[in-house]
Amino acid sequence: MGSRVVMVGGDAAGMTAASDLVKEVGPDHEIVVIERGHHTSYSACGLPYWVAGDVKSCDDLIARTPAEHRENGIDLRLGVTATGLDADRRVLVTTEGDVAYDYLLIATGAEPVRPDVPGAHAEGIAPITTISQGEELLRQLERKPEKVVVAGSGFIGVEMAEVCVRLGLDTTVVSGSQYPLDQLEPALGQRIADEMASQQIGLRLGTRLTGFRTESGRVTGVELDDHTVLDADLVILGLGVQPRSDLAAQAGLTLGPKGAIVVDAHQCADRERRIWAAGDCSAVRDRQTGKLLHVPLGDHANKQGMVAASGIEAQILGGEPAWAFPGVVQTFITRFCDLEIARTGLSRAQADDLGWDTVSVAIDTTTTAGYFPTAEPMTVWMLADRDTRRVRGVQIVGGSTAGLRIDTAATAITAGLRVDDLIMLDLGYAPPFSAVWSPLHVAARALYKLL
Amino acid sequence: MGSRVVMVGGDAAGMTAASDLVKEVGPDHEIVVIERGHHTSYSACGLPYWVAGDVKSCDDLIARTPAEHRENGIDLRLGVTATGLDADRRVLVTTEGDVAYDYLLIATGAEPVRPDVPGAHAEGIAPITTISQGEELLRQLERKPEKVVVAGSGFIGVEMAEVCVRLGLDTTVVSGSQYPLDQLEPALGQRIADEMASQQIGLRLGTRLTGFRTESGRVTGVELDDHTVLDADLVILGLGVQPRSDLAAQAGLTLGPKGAIVVDAHQCADRERRIWAAGDCSAVRDRQTGKLLHVPLGDHANKQGMVAASGIEAQILGGEPAWAFPGVVQTFITRFCDLEIARTGLSRAQADDLGWDTVSVAIDTTTTAGYFPTAEPMTVWMLADRDTRRVRGVQIVGGSTAGLRIDTAATAITAGLRVDDLIMLDLGYAPPFSAVWSPLHVAARALYKLL
Repeated sequence: MGSRVVMVGGDAAGMTAASDLVKEVGPDHEIVVIERGHHTSYSACGLPYWVAGDVKSCDDLIARTPAEHRENGIDLRLGVTATGLDADRRVLVTTEGDVAYDYLLIATGAEPVRPDVPGAHAEGIAPITTISQGEELLRQLERKPEKVVVAGSGFIGVEMAEVCVRLGLDTTVVSGSQYPLDQLEPALGQRIADEMASQQIGLRLGTRLTGFRTESGRVTGVELDDHTVLDADLVILGLGVQPRSDLAAQAGLTLGPKGAIVVDAHQCADRERRIWAAGDCSAVRDRQTGKLLHVPLGDHANKQGMVAASGIEAQILGGEPAWAFPGVVQTFITRFCDLEIARTGLSRAQADDLGWDTVSVAIDTTTTAGYFPTAEPMTVWMLADRDTRRVRGVQIVGGSTAGLRIDTAATAITAGLRVDDLIMLDLGYAPPFSAVWSPLHVAARALYKLL
Repeated sequence: MGSRVVMVGGDAAGMTAASDLVKEVGPDHEIVVIERGHHTSYSACGLPYWVAGDVKSCDDLIARTPAEHRENGIDLRLGVTATGLDADRRVLVTTEGDVAYDYLLIATGAEPVRPDVPGAHAEGIAPITTISQGEELLRQLERKPEKVVVAGSGFIGVEMAEVCVRLGLDTTVVSGSQYPLDQLEPALGQRIADEMASQQIGLRLGTRLTGFRTESGRVTGVELDDHTVLDADLVILGLGVQPRSDLAAQAGLTLGPKGAIVVDAHQCADRERRIWAAGDCSAVRDRQTGKLLHVPLGDHANKQGMVAASGIEAQILGGEPAWAFPGVVQTFITRFCDLEIARTGLSRAQADDLGWDTVSVAIDTTTTAGYFPTAEPMTVWMLADRDTRRVRGVQIVGGSTAGLRIDTAATAITAGLRVDDLIMLDLGYAPPFSAVWSPLHVAARALYKLL
C-alpha cells in the first residue's frame, strides 16, 4: 500500500510540491492538497497590477487551475480548512473531518497584518494578499473613493501607492518608518519618498496608525499617533504579512522570526514526525550570516516546494534528496511608477548589528552610456568587508533597467566575490545598455578607493 | 631625474593609463601620449548611434578632451604618428622625430578590415571606427544614397543595419556567415535574421564580396561570389577589426590571434625591454579555457589601461602592481532595433573544439511575468559540462530588458557556478521584472533535466 502525502495550502509552495510528487511517486502514492480557498497556484505578487488594470483578469494570475491539478492526479480539496494537527497520530483535523497522513507539508503561507486597533475590521479597510481580497478591493474602488490611505510603506504599500497614482486617487501613505521601504539605506529611501511626493502622494512618515473612525460599520478616517485624523473612505493595508503557523505551533514545532516555522536545508520541520514546511509560513536562512529570517516571496516558495518534494520523495523511495535550499541573500526588486528599486545582501544596519567591520559607498551614475538618449539617473550603494573586501550588500534606485542589475550583485555576493573581482567582471558593454564601466563597476571602484 | 612613460594611442586604454599614471607618479615622471588623430578618450562604440542621430554631437562621445588631459599634466601630442620602434634603444620613431622612453605602452587599437578586392578604396566605401570616419559617413549620408550595402554582419554590421532602418534607407546586408552575429548559436542567429527581414533589410548570407564596381572613383555596386552584382551608392564596412600591431611586430614581440600583441596578466609584453600593451591591439585570455583571443571592446580597454598603469607604476615606484587583468568570458551585448542580443562564455562550437563534453538547451520564455502587459518573448540558450554541471555559456535574444540578464550569467560563469547553483540563486522577483522562475532559472532547470 502506498503512502499518503498531505499538503496544507494550495498556492506556490504546496502546489509545486504536489505537482513534483505526483509526477515522481504517483499514482502508487496518494497526493492530497487541502486548500481553504478556491484558487490554486496564483501569483499573489501580481495582485496590485490586476487592481491597476495592467492584468485584465485574475485568471491570468493563475498558473495552473484546480481542474489542471486534478487532471494531473492530485487529490485537491478546495474550501477545506485545516483546524488542528495531531502530529503524534499523524492526523490533520479539517473542517471536513480528520485526514491521516504519512507525510505532511505545511504550506499555509502568510496573512496580512491587521493593526490591533479599534475599527480594524470595518468595511473599506482592505488587505491585498489573495484573489478574494483583490476582488473585494476592486469592489471598493468601484465606489470611487475620494480619499485613500495606504497604511504601510513596505512592498505592498509602495506598489499600492503606484496603483493609486495610476487610478488618479487622492492618496496618503502612512508609515511608522522614516522613509518608504526601510530595508534600504536612508539616501535611497529618500529618493522613493521624493518620487512619491512628486506624484502627489501625501506622506505621513514616522507616524503610527492608532485607530479608525467609522460610520455605520464603514471606515471614514484614520487616527494617527500625532493626534491628527486623516479622512479616508478607503484604507489599503500594506503593513506586511506574518507566517500562518498555528498548526505548527499546535504540534510544538520550533518557530523562528515572526513565528515562521524553522526547517532544515531540506525544508523538514520534524523528521521523526514527518512534517515539512515551505513557502511564506517557513523561515529561511541568510546565506551570508546563517541567521534565520522571514522573507515571504513567491520565488522562494517555489524553490522550497521543489526542495520539500524531493525530501519527501527520498523518504518514500529511499535515497538522498535531490535538492537542498541554500538560503537567501535577501534580494528584492520592485518599482514605484518609473522608479526601480532593488536590494540584495546586507544593509548597513544588519552588518553593524553583527559587529562586522564594513565600508560602504553610494554613487550616482546612469543606466546607459551617459550620452545615450535613454540614459536615466541611477544610484548604487555598495557594502563590503573592510579586511577581506568581500561584497556584502548592494542597493539600487533608478530609472528603467536600473533594478535588474541587482541579479548580478546577488550572484556576486552568493559567490563570495570581492570588490576587486567585481571591478574585473566581464559585463556586457554597449552604449544602449551601459557605460564602459557599468553601474556596478562604478560603485565597486568607488568602494575600492575607500578600502 | 624622473622616468618618461610613453603611450602610443590616445583612446580608451592609452588615456586611462596616462590619467592613472599622471595622478600616481606625476609630475616627478613624464607622461607622454602620442596620438595620430585629433581626438582623445572617445566612445567608438557610440559611433553608430551618433550616425543614427541618437547622439547629437560627436563631442558627446568624448569622455575627456585633449585640453582636459593636458590640464591634468599629460604631455599629449596630437597628429603625430609612431612609425617605428627601436626597442633595444628604447626609442619610438614618430613623424615628429624620435621619442626616447623608459617605459612604453602600446595602445594603438584596431583598424577596420578592408576587403582586399578591386575598388576597395573608392569613395562611398565607409568604415566606422573613428570620429573622422563617422564624419565622413555622415557626409555620405547627406548625399541621400539610394542603395546601401552593409558589408559584414558582426556587431558593427548589425548595429549599422539598425541605423539604416531608422534612417529609412534601402539596405542589404552581405555576409559570409550563415546568419548575423555568428558567434551565436544558429537558432538565435536565425531570430536576428528574421527580425532584419521583418525590417525590410535585404540579406545575402553565406555570400562573399569579391569586388566593387566604381565610376569616376565612386562606388556604384558590389560584386558577390555568386556572380551577382548589387547596386550600391554607399557601402558601410562592418567586416570587423584587426589589431594595429606593426610596432610590436617591428620590436619582435609575440603576436597572437589576428596579430594581437600577447601580454601577461599585468599587460606587459616584454618586461626586459619595458613594453606594455593594452586595449584593442592586445590579446586577452579566456578565463575558462586559458586560450588567447582578440576581443576588441572598450570595457576591456579601460580595464587593461588601468592594469598597465599599475604595472608601470610598480616598476617606477617599486612594489607589486595593484592590478592584474584576469581575462574575459567573452561577454557581449548589442541590439538590432527592438531585439536585444547578448552572449557570454563558450559557444557550442568552442566547447566542441576543446573536446569538452557539454550539454545545451534553448528555452523560450518572457522578459516579465507572462501575464504582465510589457512581457516580450525571449530565448535563453545555456551550455554546461556534462560531468561537473558547471555552466559554460549563455546566450540571449529577446525583447526589452532581455539582454541585461547576460551580466548575471557572466558573473555565474566567472564564479564557476553549476547549473544547480544557478537554479537556487536568489534573483530579484516581481511581476514587472521577471516571472517567479527568472529566465535564467528556467534555462537552468531545463538543462538540469537533460543532465
